[in-house]
Amino acid sequence: MEFWYTEEQTENVRLSMKIKEQLYSRKSPFQQIDVFQTEEFGKLLTIDGLVMVTEKDEFVYHDMITHVAMATNPEIKRVLVIGGGDGGTVRELTRYSTIEKIDMVEIDEVVVIACREHLQQTACKLDDPRVSLYFEDGLKFVENKKDVYDLILVDSTDPIGPGEGLFTNEFYTNCFNCLSENGILINQNESPFYEHNAREMKRANTKIKNIFPICRPYQYCIPTYPSGFWLFGFASKKLDPIKDLDADRWNSLGLKTKYYNTDLHVGAFALPSYVKEMLDSE
Amino acid sequence: MEFWYTEEQTENVRLSMKIKEQLYSRKSPFQQIDVFQTEEFGKLLTIDGLVMVTEKDEFVYHDMITHVAMATNPEIKRVLVIGGGDGGTVRELTRYSTIEKIDMVEIDEVVVIACREHLQQTACKLDDPRVSLYFEDGLKFVENKKDVYDLILVDSTDPIGPGEGLFTNEFYTNCFNCLSENGILINQNESPFYEHNAREMKRANTKIKNIFPICRPYQYCIPTYPSGFWLFGFASKKLDPIKDLDADRWNSLGLKTKYYNTDLHVGAFALPSYVKEMLDSE
Repeated sequence: MEFWYTEEQTENVRLSMKIKEQLYSRKSPFQQIDVFQTEEFGKLLTIDGLVMVTEKDEFVYHDMITHVAMATNPEIKRVLVIGGGDGGTVRELTRYSTIEKIDMVEIDEVVVIACREHLQQTACKLDDPRVSLYFEDGLKFVENKKDVYDLILVDSTDPIGPGEGLFTNEFYTNCFNCLSENGILINQNESPFYEHNAREMKRANTKIKNIFPICRPYQYCIPTYPSGFWLFGFASKKLDPIKDLDADRWNSLGLKTKYYNTDLHVGAFALPSYVKEMLDSE
Repeated sequence: MEFWYTEEQTENVRLSMKIKEQLYSRKSPFQQIDVFQTEEFGKLLTIDGLVMVTEKDEFVYHDMITHVAMATNPEIKRVLVIGGGDGGTVRELTRYSTIEKIDMVEIDEVVVIACREHLQQTACKLDDPRVSLYFEDGLKFVENKKDVYDLILVDSTDPIGPGEGLFTNEFYTNCFNCLSENGILINQNESPFYEHNAREMKRANTKIKNIFPICRPYQYCIPTYPSGFWLFGFASKKLDPIKDLDADRWNSLGLKTKYYNTDLHVGAFALPSYVKEMLDSE
């Protein structure tokens, strides 16, 4: 008898992964959280039936959410992670000895509990002394703060359920205010390929463009997300991700990364024409 | 009752697409050919149960197999397409008024028959007066020819079944000899993500590197291929796809493309670190 995990990527498209066993299943006050052992992808974390993280391709996501900003501004010292309960984003951040403080605000403690127990590949650095965990609503956490972070990484689910508030004007404005003069905001910016993802990509981008002087989405290929073609949004008050990239400086750090490199950093901002057109249209 | 087309991308991963109806099904002397009307992807052509072309994302593949070479050398006049029975590659080539002659060698006439009938989106330019169709084995077609093409596009299936010979030293050597001094060879170079694809990527690349002075794989995101992350190989006798790119000249042609642009051309050669490592390892 075979067991398969199947995600409805759209109502007409499904991705299925063969499962060895289910390791964890719990309904938190916010969402349904499951961990599976798959044949192809190592361990798999799902939330409300959607793929969040697999051991085989999480390096793509966590490299790209972290290193693009860090290579653009190596002076980053104070970082806020919103969401990111699996710990992969924090793991990448802790590799920079120059970072002094990492606040992680995850609304759902159960995600962290599940990942500490079953996903040590990503959750391995949550006890780093620079990390403070807050189990709160990120939307509230960023209210009434001024110039307290150099970098905010919005490592969120899709804009449905608990992640919805993280795609609003109010949230992006509060992030702007939280950030220092050289501040950077990276947000999970959905995907251009399927219509429902593309609509959210466009909406998030339109809002951020109205608040941040610099707004440049960038792409990456992550096989277990719908279509495999996904974006982050780079937004900042002043720094440009291409002009301000100091490749030599980042390379001199000697960080070994499986996906990110400084050439790919530049290449990731060169979007397909259909994506540029979507983003530029009113 | 619902109908789904399911591809086994690996023995542990499946992609399924909802089907409205099956439009065509025939077993040729070489392979099984089917055309479906899908809900999400428009029409779908499969060969031996593997996705070849969908109307929704074929632009990615056909833009990237054609325009990278054409922008590197706008002097290309004589082109050989091997495989490509759906006609999408020929369609993109015919957009260049500077191209004088396009030979297309497809081993299986039934693919062309099926696509002429059911996939006019790609097969629409097969009757262009510059196009000659040969229903022969591409492997034989390139034997004992010298300096007859400026560009060869290997638009093949995977290296199993009839496509297998198109991944051999003998074939690549014959391509080298067919090409003019500024000649370019583009080949379908598989994918780095799943092990069986990665093995073929590496093998093809190792062979081509030993024959062509310049060999540079480049990437694109095509959602309906396994993992969505796929490569073409750029090989040439002299021209470098980055240094010899004349972006202004290509842009002055005014070709509207949905995926390709000259910034993305450069970005496509900036591969993830894990791919570079695979390609560089012995």
